[in-house]
Amino acid sequence: MSVTAAAGFAAAGVTAGLKKSGGLDLAIVQNLGPLTSCATVFTANRCQANPVIWSQQVMKDGVVSAIVLNSGGANCYTGTIGFQTTHATAEAVATGLGISAGDVLVCSTGLIGEQLNLDLVTAGVVDAALALKTDAASTPDAALLAARAIMTTDTTPKQSVYVAPAGWTVGGMAKGAGMLAPGLATMLVVITTDARLSSAQLDAALRQATRVTFDRLDSDGCMSTNDTVSLLASGASGIEADEAEFTAALVALCQDLTLQLQADAEGSAHDVAIEVRNAASEPDAVTVARAVSRSALFKTAIYGNDPNWGRVLAAVGTTDAAFDPYGIDVAINGVQVCTAGEPDQPRELVDLTPRAVSVVIDLHEGDETATVWTNDLTHEYVEENSAYSS
Amino acid sequence: MSVTAAAGFAAAGVTAGLKKSGGLDLAIVQNLGPLTSCATVFTANRCQANPVIWSQQVMKDGVVSAIVLNSGGANCYTGTIGFQTTHATAEAVATGLGISAGDVLVCSTGLIGEQLNLDLVTAGVVDAALALKTDAASTPDAALLAARAIMTTDTTPKQSVYVAPAGWTVGGMAKGAGMLAPGLATMLVVITTDARLSSAQLDAALRQATRVTFDRLDSDGCMSTNDTVSLLASGASGIEADEAEFTAALVALCQDLTLQLQADAEGSAHDVAIEVRNAASEPDAVTVARAVSRSALFKTAIYGNDPNWGRVLAAVGTTDAAFDPYGIDVAINGVQVCTAGEPDQPRELVDLTPRAVSVVIDLHEGDETATVWTNDLTHEYVEENSAYSS
Repeated sequence: MSVTAAAGFAAAGVTAGLKKSGGLDLAIVQNLGPLTSCATVFTANRCQANPVIWSQQVMKDGVVSAIVLNSGGANCYTGTIGFQTTHATAEAVATGLGISAGDVLVCSTGLIGEQLNLDLVTAGVVDAALALKTDAASTPDAALLAARAIMTTDTTPKQSVYVAPAGWTVGGMAKGAGMLAPGLATMLVVITTDARLSSAQLDAALRQATRVTFDRLDSDGCMSTNDTVSLLASGASGIEADEAEFTAALVALCQDLTLQLQADAEGSAHDVAIEVRNAASEPDAVTVARAVSRSALFKTAIYGNDPNWGRVLAAVGTTDAAFDPYGIDVAINGVQVCTAGEPDQPRELVDLTPRAVSVVIDLHEGDETATVWTNDLTHEYVEENSAYSS
Repeated sequence: MSVTAAAGFAAAGVTAGLKKSGGLDLAIVQNLGPLTSCATVFTANRCQANPVIWSQQVMKDGVVSAIVLNSGGANCYTGTIGFQTTHATAEAVATGLGISAGDVLVCSTGLIGEQLNLDLVTAGVVDAALALKTDAASTPDAALLAARAIMTTDTTPKQSVYVAPAGWTVGGMAKGAGMLAPGLATMLVVITTDARLSSAQLDAALRQATRVTFDRLDSDGCMSTNDTVSLLASGASGIEADEAEFTAALVALCQDLTLQLQADAEGSAHDVAIEVRNAASEPDAVTVARAVSRSALFKTAIYGNDPNWGRVLAAVGTTDAAFDPYGIDVAINGVQVCTAGEPDQPRELVDLTPRAVSVVIDLHEGDETATVWTNDLTHEYVEENSAYSS
């Protein structure tokens, strides 16, 4: 139950043969209207994949009728041929669904620098388009097939749904198990709603939501070339959602998906929430939390169940945030191991055996707070990423 | 042969009992003059250890008669007691050698947030001071003991010597096997010379040398709280070195030590040189090379002997350097896998089995070049750093 939970959407997931490992690898989500509003957030990476370049053009008018996603290849740094493949994919979807190619978003994920097999993609699109014409396409089962088709190293599909008391619904699916970094990650997210909202309204809500959720998930510090978060509104509920209420629901939904992505991050053994309190500004809080989330030494220590708080402060010290090095408190899983830059409670009191880890850093400089979510750095991460080339 | 190669220096390395693992853990290098010139470069980390805070005060007059270094504890985030320990260490050295405590640099390395045992330190200083009064203190053996005493997770001591045709000598020792990052690393370096040079001349040469050597070693992206590179001149050769010649020798010596540090980086299986060519500026070249050197995905791929050049470009794309995403060439170990943002030679041609790896990124934006040295991210790195707490 995710992208088909809201009225006015159909989904399909099929096996096109793009993934070497086999299995579902192509999905389409269709907006049946009456509205075709859409908002998107793309990777901040300056090296952008062909589907990102294409989709940015599609978004110029804010009208999107369908989104097609494939795993098994990023279609990035594949040159003119690669762009033609993206274009042809959108054309195939347009033909299959009787819509305009200019209203079709394309998302790809997988290895960079390899051409996608267009024949396989096209055949997959035909299969998916047929499936979308059946009644089953609006069921939770169809949504689950789509959520499965976009998985790469994910071990589970990620879905979330919120039904508003006012009568509208928002649901979403996500993939991404590595490269979960700022400006998004190797992350593809499709969110649908049947609320009546314009593209501009969707855009404002989506930017606010991603800023405090997906953008603060930093599993391994790496930023993908393909990330796309899209939010489509069909208006099929007939209800004009209150913007503040919709934004709040969207934040909650995105946070749910964010934490699902964190929990399934490649090879991770701990989910770490790094909260910076009393920063002089929100950017300061995010900067400090992100620096800690990117410290290989901190992340390996957490893997080893070692509450090595010196590695936290060493990471804080690399930032330009406002702080007094000898005015910082650090607590790990509730044990205040450092107060005002001096040892406080014995580190031996910290229990790091649970998967969930909380690190609280109090800068005592203001009243702004931010949390960045990350994972530990494990043998399994090294294994997956040294072996993964497909 | 290293810090005693230049005339006018004595060295000692003793076992003070600070390292849980046992072994040599305290070293003193004494400048016997006639000059007491000195220059230092400290960590750029804003969270600085007590010995760094102390040594910065010592350097205010550029006069240094001795440097004392210990492994077995960083003496960082240890508060007032920790600062008193550093101060008392300098006083003990002063007493033992008949010099002023204000002319004694102190360096420490090890775990953050734990007090050093001052009684052990003091006893070690007494032992070292006695050793320094013997003829053996100016031998290569004494220098080797000192180089061994500063090792933490290093597997070998690092030493280098250059004898100038003009008659002066420069020699150095280094420690550091992790946290080898910009603004230096968990790296302690002592360099001595018998050339006649003022502290200002040493400072200019040292800053130029560290900028293109130690500062471009980025093994794991982490920056230490304790890094110190010191350069002491005794003038004992009586020769006023040509500044340009001295600087060139110092750059070569620092590069030699840098590559020794890289080769011994914690758990590494590959030494990777990332060269960025034809950047619009030197900072651009460094920024791009450093971004690649910090990509966990790139580093794990190299560990897996996987020439995954998409991960190189994905890292380049996170920077603000001047480049056209579709104007970049990438070569790995001599095979041009990407030309102008498109696949060129098959990645299967790249042989990554040797320890040395060359990545050349051509931005085609100007004529500036820089190299950053890094390592791969391995199981052994994770093991050492998840277990290491001492």
